[in-house]
Amino acid sequence: MLCGKSQLRAEIVTVGEELLSGRTVNTNASWIACSLRGLGIRVVRITTVGDDVDEIASAIREALARADIIVTSGGLGPTPDDLTLEGIARGLGRGLRLNEEALELVKKRYKAMVRRGLVAKVSLTKARTKMATLPEGSKPLPNPVGTALGVVLEREGKLIVGLPGVPAEMKAIFKESVIPLLQARVSRAIPECELTARLAGILESDLAPLLEKVLRRYPDVYVKSHPKGCEAESRIDLYVRATGETKDEARRRAEKVLSFLKNLIVERGGRAECT
Amino acid sequence: MLCGKSQLRAEIVTVGEELLSGRTVNTNASWIACSLRGLGIRVVRITTVGDDVDEIASAIREALARADIIVTSGGLGPTPDDLTLEGIARGLGRGLRLNEEALELVKKRYKAMVRRGLVAKVSLTKARTKMATLPEGSKPLPNPVGTALGVVLEREGKLIVGLPGVPAEMKAIFKESVIPLLQARVSRAIPECELTARLAGILESDLAPLLEKVLRRYPDVYVKSHPKGCEAESRIDLYVRATGETKDEARRRAEKVLSFLKNLIVERGGRAECT
Repeated sequence: MLCGKSQLRAEIVTVGEELLSGRTVNTNASWIACSLRGLGIRVVRITTVGDDVDEIASAIREALARADIIVTSGGLGPTPDDLTLEGIARGLGRGLRLNEEALELVKKRYKAMVRRGLVAKVSLTKARTKMATLPEGSKPLPNPVGTALGVVLEREGKLIVGLPGVPAEMKAIFKESVIPLLQARVSRAIPECELTARLAGILESDLAPLLEKVLRRYPDVYVKSHPKGCEAESRIDLYVRATGETKDEARRRAEKVLSFLKNLIVERGGRAECT
Repeated sequence: MLCGKSQLRAEIVTVGEELLSGRTVNTNASWIACSLRGLGIRVVRITTVGDDVDEIASAIREALARADIIVTSGGLGPTPDDLTLEGIARGLGRGLRLNEEALELVKKRYKAMVRRGLVAKVSLTKARTKMATLPEGSKPLPNPVGTALGVVLEREGKLIVGLPGVPAEMKAIFKESVIPLLQARVSRAIPECELTARLAGILESDLAPLLEKVLRRYPDVYVKSHPKGCEAESRIDLYVRATGETKDEARRRAEKVLSFLKNLIVERGGRAECT
């Protein structure tokens, strides 16, 4: 795929026992993946680990060896099972240090809670200062809808972004602070266009040689079939993704490939409808 | 956690560009995780990679170094982007070989399609024999609802199970073939009991020191708080998981811990309701 050569590569590391037990479906990973792709950044791996400092540290180290950007989600709160900051610090071989800017943000949040009558006074307990105790070299990212702060830090030009696991907080920090940070890194997103089609009347095993023909002729274009039921029902979603110098060029290339493939499918007795 | 010492450890590797782009939420991983846990097997990591032989191979190698059981999902179909069998083979340093038992299963499936008038004749095209071309040493697992076969293979006493990505097919193979295989490995599942409670009227940062007190007193019990909204709304789900010699003992231990914690919460002005 043409775009694979010059795009920034990201990995997502989601942290939480509730993800490993299957109790919580990992919608955070999908949301972050979708948002990164919207910025022109390619997600190459998603890793989920439990609430364990060594597991988090090893996932961070491994991701750093492969990708330019790491986004974590989960484990930034005040309770003892929130271990992502410690995991990131261990993964990078850095210490944890009380961050004054973060402490101010935490204080501000609890002051607002005092005003709303939710707490009696702003008492900076150990659990609350924990959220402001960040890996050395981190910058806190304000949380507009909750208490747990996000963090961002750099390591040899690579970016590590830590976000909370509560979806509304994760999304709010991503939109407010992470998008501007990443946009500054993506010098120029490579224009791409994805077209989708719903196929019917053709088995996936009969589609296979047609896709091979397409890939031989257009090796730079990404084509993927995604069966929606079992093969005998032969409902297949098809994705054609092309890149180009401009959005228009990407669209023209994707349309050309889809049209070529549609003709092959119709010749084989199948149907293809754009969706 | 007591159960961590003697339970079999599993990793899940899900394969598919649609997961990395965020278009598809990884419900397969949650379903497999939940099913493994039901069998008394602990999931320690979930990894998602794209449709790329090297990525799949490295995920398999890394998972094998850590876990006893690897379950993959996705990439077993007939199209060129289905690369999991090649990835597993490369990860294990084994070749791919046409498996006669698998070929019979594929033939049987297409014969059934001929009877239903879905295909004219059973023609074993390259795309169809691909699904029967398995890593050396594999055994095919019949697919009762689709064409792509599952596979199982062993490496130094560790088990690798490959399942298709279409949820209905993945689940059908898991229920029919994988559960009996795994049950034979789990000599005796460690009885465990998980109790949940919904907390209100207490901030997560005020709950934190209470959880620490519980963990100091009951270090063998797993306790996790899971905030459901932002901290100011203070809706927290609490999970207490204990193991024991018997199911009853596990339940008694979990109840004891939850009751201890509830008292602390009520003293702090909060409420806890069992759910």
